[in-house]
Amino acid sequence: MRGTLRAWRSRWERLRNRDRVGADPFGPPRSRAWQRPAQLVVAAFALVTLVGTALLMLPIAHEGPKSTSLVQALFTAVSAVCVAGLAVVDTGQHWSTFGEIVILALIKTGGVGIMTLASVLGMVVIRRFGLRMQLSAQAETRSLNLGDVRSLVARIFVISTTCEVVVSLVLTLRLWTYYEEPFGQALYHGVFHGVAAFNNAGLALYSDSLTRFAADPVILLPVAAAIVLGSLGFPVLLEMRRHIRQPRRWSLHTKLTLTASSFLLVAGIVAITVLEWSNPATLGAMSWPQKLLTGVFHGVMPRSGGFNVVDVGQMDDSTLFVTIMLMFVGGGSAGTAGGIKATTFAVIFVVVWAEIRGHPDVHAFGRRLSGGAIRQALSLTFLSMTVVAAATVYLLITTPFPLEQILFEVVSAFGVVGLSTGITPELPGQAQVLLVLLMFAGRIGPITFASALALRERTRRYDLPEARPIIG
Amino acid sequence: MRGTLRAWRSRWERLRNRDRVGADPFGPPRSRAWQRPAQLVVAAFALVTLVGTALLMLPIAHEGPKSTSLVQALFTAVSAVCVAGLAVVDTGQHWSTFGEIVILALIKTGGVGIMTLASVLGMVVIRRFGLRMQLSAQAETRSLNLGDVRSLVARIFVISTTCEVVVSLVLTLRLWTYYEEPFGQALYHGVFHGVAAFNNAGLALYSDSLTRFAADPVILLPVAAAIVLGSLGFPVLLEMRRHIRQPRRWSLHTKLTLTASSFLLVAGIVAITVLEWSNPATLGAMSWPQKLLTGVFHGVMPRSGGFNVVDVGQMDDSTLFVTIMLMFVGGGSAGTAGGIKATTFAVIFVVVWAEIRGHPDVHAFGRRLSGGAIRQALSLTFLSMTVVAAATVYLLITTPFPLEQILFEVVSAFGVVGLSTGITPELPGQAQVLLVLLMFAGRIGPITFASALALRERTRRYDLPEARPIIG
Ligand SMILES: [K+]
Ligand SMILES: [K+]
Repeated sequence: MRGTLRAWRSRWERLRNRDRVGADPFGPPRSRAWQRPAQLVVAAFALVTLVGTALLMLPIAHEGPKSTSLVQALFTAVSAVCVAGLAVVDTGQHWSTFGEIVILALIKTGGVGIMTLASVLGMVVIRRFGLRMQLSAQAETRSLNLGDVRSLVARIFVISTTCEVVVSLVLTLRLWTYYEEPFGQALYHGVFHGVAAFNNAGLALYSDSLTRFAADPVILLPVAAAIVLGSLGFPVLLEMRRHIRQPRRWSLHTKLTLTASSFLLVAGIVAITVLEWSNPATLGAMSWPQKLLTGVFHGVMPRSGGFNVVDVGQMDDSTLFVTIMLMFVGGGSAGTAGGIKATTFAVIFVVVWAEIRGHPDVHAFGRRLSGGAIRQALSLTFLSMTVVAAATVYLLITTPFPLEQILFEVVSAFGVVGLSTGITPELPGQAQVLLVLLMFAGRIGPITFASALALRERTRRYDLPEARPIIG
Repeated sequence: MRGTLRAWRSRWERLRNRDRVGADPFGPPRSRAWQRPAQLVVAAFALVTLVGTALLMLPIAHEGPKSTSLVQALFTAVSAVCVAGLAVVDTGQHWSTFGEIVILALIKTGGVGIMTLASVLGMVVIRRFGLRMQLSAQAETRSLNLGDVRSLVARIFVISTTCEVVVSLVLTLRLWTYYEEPFGQALYHGVFHGVAAFNNAGLALYSDSLTRFAADPVILLPVAAAIVLGSLGFPVLLEMRRHIRQPRRWSLHTKLTLTASSFLLVAGIVAITVLEWSNPATLGAMSWPQKLLTGVFHGVMPRSGGFNVVDVGQMDDSTLFVTIMLMFVGGGSAGTAGGIKATTFAVIFVVVWAEIRGHPDVHAFGRRLSGGAIRQALSLTFLSMTVVAAATVYLLITTPFPLEQILFEVVSAFGVVGLSTGITPELPGQAQVLLVLLMFAGRIGPITFASALALRERTRRYDLPEARPIIG
């Protein structure tokens, strides 16, 4: 840990002195120090998680005479830091106001923290390959100095806080005026759920999540909008803000993310609305405008929101299966979403499409995808599938629940979505610890894995003869 | 159809005249005729299936006063031609000896037929790219004439018939001497199950599949060995026979197939033995040598055998899930197996491994994998997943069965494995037709899709600027 920090500090030194000494801090490394950024991300998250767990273990963190077990505190801290949203205890009932504020702080730290770290890593990767990315004004010049990073952090903080304040304000006013909560309580609830929404945390202070607002578009639509925005990821948000009227200037990353996210969003809304339309336990009893509102809201959730207004455990198996696939893909990179990411999904789709049309190169939006990006998308997807499959087999062996419920909970944890068919609190302790590991791996894994891969990419030195095995 | 045959005949003409006119029949095509080989495969299988269905509809094809519905005849014909092994009626009870012989003929036609067509397509693909493949003596010279194809067909017929005769002989002798079946019946049963085994057809004449032989290694081990051999695929079998003592001379394809198949075989055997060890409905009540024998036998089945000696429907959910994954991968190319194929799996693994180690190129056994092969493996895998997912959603909506049973049956059909948890006969007619489509797509799809892709591969004419989206 101390070694990691020292290496990182020396990197900053090289970074600050780069104009003077002319060394490129992100050029090909002389030592193995280039592995450090990924290690720093893991270490930072582990540290915040440990502090959060310790705070949640304090007697003042929970209400009344109950006690909090280590697994409960750890699970809640990881769920908050990783903005997952799965819960082993009732968030509003179990935790005191102090505990809830700790959770809120963990959400904000985890949400903004990962955005920042992922964006910095993204800049490093992009810079290393000499490709332009419009994260900052100097981006085109291939220089990256501490000013860039400071400005990046500031921009992320401003964007995320602005979104959170707007949604919190709407929720507060609605809770205060329409639901007649006292102003202080309305403000507290408004801020908590506003922050939870933009950060896709999925933790609600109400025992029924947001079910009590199932017919209220003034609550549900701002929450859904905040979830979608947060899930797009910071690079996309910033680029959209800068070039809102010039979509042509958007980078390939933004175009791929927006296209894939739109498709997944529509697919989710249509699937849930159609498949649950006459399910008496979910949309069946509703008026049709409410069916549509609920369909939209629950179609947004796999982006990786995690709130619910109907009982997910009562949904049809077909809905659960579609939701599992949507959760596995998740949202945009360097945002509050999990999963393999919409860009990865888009890259795979583009590759398949190019193959079907027999194109020798993989093109998207007037750009050629590098073989490296394709191999990384494939690797990330298959490693993620391996993790999900292994966890599923373990839970199938050790718990009595059927495949659809286990797969749902595993993918929800790995995709840091937080939707649940209700089995998480009933799982044995070691299975809950497995979900903790899945949330952690799902939040940190893809970012650090992919950036570590990209940073390690080397130019080829020699070539072996090419061979073509029979595929299919 | 007539047009297809005409185009194919003209291709043969060009082929026969190639030395005279100097035209390369497999060179870059002038017209769209290069799409024809794939169409021929589809047309040939459709034709054989139609004839088989018509024959099975005849009154003399079934026993006693029962009748055969169109769906029953179609399902059985497709299951036999595609060497899948799923059944909607009891094979031994429902069909007369005439019907059974039709089924046997369909199995042999489908098994050898696809081996031949896939091998010819494979030669075409390999030749088109100027890569050496040791299918025939002249292979290295880059010439492919009708003599090659004739010799190829002859070799396939000799190899497959030799394997079938050996296994049939062992089974016949065992049934005759040990089980005291009359010689004629023992011969009939021996030949039927010997042919079914090598062709991985999975259809048995006994109502309980091979459960009555659950403790008899003299029956089970030859059947398992025939299934493994058939699943490796003809190119691998031939190369192993020619260079049995010089594994270094094996092609990359053979090395990848053998490595991946061995891994999947061991994984299947270990998983089933361990997971079912104390399941009272399967291995639980057995002596431990019988547990091992059954574990080996059922570990071989996902290669794509399809027989069973214990009730698959009674297996633990974890076993079903592992089996689903193994069945999805399947066996070797140009053989009797289905699935995305062991080579495809191996290519994906090698890509992931190269990424993890940060290698700029993807190497395997001293050869470099082309970007085209990687993109084709990715495309085939994701298209297969899409087909399986769509069929699963459809069956989840239209049938009352849980996810694990539906996914199992869908992957068993798509991977032409033939294992069943028992729901196939209970499915409604349109769901059975869906399984028919899955078996057909699973058997024909990967071969024609991949070869069509490979044949269409073009050299790039211009380059767009390269861009790197954020992965993960
Ligand atoms: K979430
Ligand atoms: K089979």
